[in-house]
Amino acid sequence: MSRISADSKGVYIIAVTPFKDDGAIDTASVDRMVDFYFDKGTDGLTILGIMGEAPKLTQQESIAITKQVLARSAGRPVIVGVSAPGLAAIGELTKAVMDLGAAGVMVAPPGSLRTDDQIIGYYRNVVATIGEDVPFVLQDFPLVTGVQISPRTIGAIIEALPSMVMLKHEDWPGLDKISELRAAEAAGRRRISILCGNGGVFLPEEMARGADGAMTGFAFPEMMVNVCKLAGAGNLDRAQDIFDAYLPLARFEQQPGLGLAVRKYVLEKRGVISSQAQRRPGAALGTKAVAEVDRLLLRLEKRLAELA
Amino acid sequence: MSRISADSKGVYIIAVTPFKDDGAIDTASVDRMVDFYFDKGTDGLTILGIMGEAPKLTQQESIAITKQVLARSAGRPVIVGVSAPGLAAIGELTKAVMDLGAAGVMVAPPGSLRTDDQIIGYYRNVVATIGEDVPFVLQDFPLVTGVQISPRTIGAIIEALPSMVMLKHEDWPGLDKISELRAAEAAGRRRISILCGNGGVFLPEEMARGADGAMTGFAFPEMMVNVCKLAGAGNLDRAQDIFDAYLPLARFEQQPGLGLAVRKYVLEKRGVISSQAQRRPGAALGTKAVAEVDRLLLRLEKRLAELA
Amino acid sequence: MSRISADSKGVYIIAVTPFKDDGAIDTASVDRMVDFYFDKGTDGLTILGIMGEAPKLTQQESIAITKQVLARSAGRPVIVGVSAPGLAAIGELTKAVMDLGAAGVMVAPPGSLRTDDQIIGYYRNVVATIGEDVPFVLQDFPLVTGVQISPRTIGAIIEALPSMVMLKHEDWPGLDKISELRAAEAAGRRRISILCGNGGVFLPEEMARGADGAMTGFAFPEMMVNVCKLAGAGNLDRAQDIFDAYLPLARFEQQPGLGLAVRKYVLEKRGVISSQAQRRPGAALGTKAVAEVDRLLLRLEKRLAELA
Amino acid sequence: MSRISADSKGVYIIAVTPFKDDGAIDTASVDRMVDFYFDKGTDGLTILGIMGEAPKLTQQESIAITKQVLARSAGRPVIVGVSAPGLAAIGELTKAVMDLGAAGVMVAPPGSLRTDDQIIGYYRNVVATIGEDVPFVLQDFPLVTGVQISPRTIGAIIEALPSMVMLKHEDWPGLDKISELRAAEAAGRRRISILCGNGGVFLPEEMARGADGAMTGFAFPEMMVNVCKLAGAGNLDRAQDIFDAYLPLARFEQQPGLGLAVRKYVLEKRGVISSQAQRRPGAALGTKAVAEVDRLLLRLEKRLAELA
Repeated sequence: MSRISADSKGVYIIAVTPFKDDGAIDTASVDRMVDFYFDKGTDGLTILGIMGEAPKLTQQESIAITKQVLARSAGRPVIVGVSAPGLAAIGELTKAVMDLGAAGVMVAPPGSLRTDDQIIGYYRNVVATIGEDVPFVLQDFPLVTGVQISPRTIGAIIEALPSMVMLKHEDWPGLDKISELRAAEAAGRRRISILCGNGGVFLPEEMARGADGAMTGFAFPEMMVNVCKLAGAGNLDRAQDIFDAYLPLARFEQQPGLGLAVRKYVLEKRGVISSQAQRRPGAALGTKAVAEVDRLLLRLEKRLAELA
Repeated sequence: MSRISADSKGVYIIAVTPFKDDGAIDTASVDRMVDFYFDKGTDGLTILGIMGEAPKLTQQESIAITKQVLARSAGRPVIVGVSAPGLAAIGELTKAVMDLGAAGVMVAPPGSLRTDDQIIGYYRNVVATIGEDVPFVLQDFPLVTGVQISPRTIGAIIEALPSMVMLKHEDWPGLDKISELRAAEAAGRRRISILCGNGGVFLPEEMARGADGAMTGFAFPEMMVNVCKLAGAGNLDRAQDIFDAYLPLARFEQQPGLGLAVRKYVLEKRGVISSQAQRRPGAALGTKAVAEVDRLLLRLEKRLAELA
Repeated sequence: MSRISADSKGVYIIAVTPFKDDGAIDTASVDRMVDFYFDKGTDGLTILGIMGEAPKLTQQESIAITKQVLARSAGRPVIVGVSAPGLAAIGELTKAVMDLGAAGVMVAPPGSLRTDDQIIGYYRNVVATIGEDVPFVLQDFPLVTGVQISPRTIGAIIEALPSMVMLKHEDWPGLDKISELRAAEAAGRRRISILCGNGGVFLPEEMARGADGAMTGFAFPEMMVNVCKLAGAGNLDRAQDIFDAYLPLARFEQQPGLGLAVRKYVLEKRGVISSQAQRRPGAALGTKAVAEVDRLLLRLEKRLAELA
Repeated sequence: MSRISADSKGVYIIAVTPFKDDGAIDTASVDRMVDFYFDKGTDGLTILGIMGEAPKLTQQESIAITKQVLARSAGRPVIVGVSAPGLAAIGELTKAVMDLGAAGVMVAPPGSLRTDDQIIGYYRNVVATIGEDVPFVLQDFPLVTGVQISPRTIGAIIEALPSMVMLKHEDWPGLDKISELRAAEAAGRRRISILCGNGGVFLPEEMARGADGAMTGFAFPEMMVNVCKLAGAGNLDRAQDIFDAYLPLARFEQQPGLGLAVRKYVLEKRGVISSQAQRRPGAALGTKAVAEVDRLLLRLEKRLAELA
């Protein structure tokens, strides 16, 4: 029943939603996946995000998955994505998942927002809807949402809304944004937790800039766990060695739209989920892409052996 | 239990959703509103559209309103907007409202669609989700959705998906699109019903180009009913006289975002709904705008008297 | 050699660029057009705007037209649109036209701007490029530019950049924006001139909210001149009578993309320009649209006679 | 005086535009840069692209740079970017640079294009403007232009416009697009040259899918030259070894907006240009980013030594 806070750290993995080949939710794989993520050392889970195929789930299914993941996580923190075009749906799902024991919720801005005032106003409305006692993550992902949030606007939200305790940072470029946010804290503003997305492809630099960890779904959570630990221990060179080994694959998995197919393919291959199936509309991985991923996996194994 | 078809004609009014001042659904006003719309001569209703504040309703509320409106409509056709970011929600709501007796559903394209193939593919997925037996309306509203659908793409959808029986036409400019679609029918393509939106501000020209009527929510449905009837009877000049009288107000109500506040204010003033309240986030009508609308209403009354 | 200032008032007509049927610039029509605009009572001209087909002109042509219009305007103020993707082109054209005697320049924001800071930063760069002594107009036209500028951001620009003396206001809805800007002036901020665009379709309300006039290109400048004068004299009802008579046509001319074809067609019909030709890519007015405009012109004549 | 054709192959480097610290064009660096690029084995140059700060140059400067680069290139092919909001500017610059001996021009679609028909129509207008005898490159870069061009639309352009001889491929994801285009050629469509952008971060896979080379500006052209040669010789594993060594830096240089600062910093450090200065508005590389790049350069050197 732990809740996220401004001091949360480590790797919160963005979980996929496992389906059977016929499109039904694969509950056996859900349990296996939760175990896998924690076995690999992640600190928490984030479910029902963009990469969790949330919009393809009925409300009942969303609740059912949340319930199962929470049960299997046995008290470790689980954040639930509740982004929706309307506040009613956000409020409804938030209430349901917080009652079930979620650690907090994550909200991305709707694509229609443009000015700073509109963005700040939106998050005020979100908090008025979900309640001031629910800790929430602001997802800052302009590539997908189309909404650009300046450091000043994030600062205004931090100051106005104490329940905003975490930033899912995936602006691109975004390293200076981390530095700017941390500098404001050094100058007196309250701290927030910053976990980084974007498939992890800037993780060493993000950690060096002051991030608290990663929140993304790369199919090798152990890479992120190791990089975060090594960076945290000041061993940035070793962290980058590990990172570099995975980068060719991480880059491949980060392709917009296609990335989830890569991720699910690798997770199936690793025995985590039974099927790489996505619900409609899901981009299937073609024969050539499968061969490309297989080749990268072989090279990864070889390179890790060299580094061992 | 009537269903829309490619031969549907007349005025399908876009209904507002009446709320009490405290944000609760105002069920007494729902009944009064349905009666008002049909008393004014409209042929059908469309509920849960963008201007019906659909994203502000919980799923339960959406179903409850649909049930009430269908009961009060007593067999006259009611279309339900089911647009959503994910196919699961579209499928869920469609099944529920069709089971309750809706005449069809309306689906706007999600803003991420760009190429012709993506748009056609999306509607294929929609039909695979809701079933081929559910007649649906394609809402073509680039100003709000950001998705531009060429006449050729609409044609491809018409040819691929027989259950697409109606176009809610609100491209702007859009008159040539109507002509082009009708020309393709004259050349042998199957007919679809074309009802026009955009607050009705091009209705006389749209009817002359071959539209079958209006589907929009202007607070004076009698204008649209009269214009459609007069245009249908070939009396385009009288139709335009009526239209011109309402145009200063219609123009004012068509302001994006603000329009719903104008519409609800007028409907309250006309005694149709008890409160102009919108759920959060709703743009309130300021004092100056209220005075502007009041002035336009007085002028409208005077002008209609002159025309009587 | 007059220059615009924060006290500029009246109608600044957005001029078309007259072409011959073969696409060459029609210099005879340029003179006739300038005379026509001033004969109808406008106070100034704005050339090389979006509706002046500026991007279809070579740099030499832009300079040549500016020279000719300035000569023919004989000292009355001419604003030149200088919007471009790069600051170099803005600086180059501004220097050229100010040297020739332009009254000021107009700059719309490039579509890539999103956050308040980006917008303010852009206009800082513009002023650094064109020089602090060149009075400029900020064109606020989100429908076309895609950039939303909040009243707060406009205020920040007003405070930072004294050479921003005029707002071409065409946000939609935009009435409250005028009120908000004027309220800030009442509270002590320096005054700017606000001239309204959007084809003039909100002109009576805009004047009542505190606008200083119109800057748009409706093919009947006399409507805007009369509305501004009557509104300025406090006779808002007569202003609105005139306005309402023209509204069916103004609405038709305001169709995005198509509007310029309507405008040029009417100007040709009124004998102002010799040809309605646009340079490629220009949307031609089809036969049906021509008939629709002709019909609206006849009705306008009749209605004006009734009002005389 | 060579011209590009559908059979062009190899690395066409996207050249930067060297400025002095005071913003003047650094002509000495221009020559040194051209020599550097060809010394490293590139086959041609592309100048005045987005990463060449083209919109920051006056027309005269653009011509002057083209002249100098062409002279120094001594007959090797130089493509010139001519994208502009209006066809007039495209026509003007194209005529000028082709007269000077450019190998062809490159045109990206303006951001307002949406439907397939609009895109195809735009390129028809481009060819009508620049002439059918000028070979041109279609730049397909949705991340920056906002325009998505489906393989089918590219195919329609290939069939309609014989002077479209080359695709600058930087869709993301884009591997399947290459395969689809090559498959259409295998089925009989005429061949085009496909050179890949996106900073080179998918180059090994792109070559394996059938690309003819790279057209991007990574500060180590020798990486791309080697990868293309090794891939061409069938030695994909060695190609990928080289590629992987550079990937951490290539990823860093590919950050939108910031990338050019990284590239110019590295080119200055390599002694190619005298100053990393960009013209306004240019994102400067902060102290932390400089340290990050320096660290990546050291690691690169070490890794290349391991691979030697």
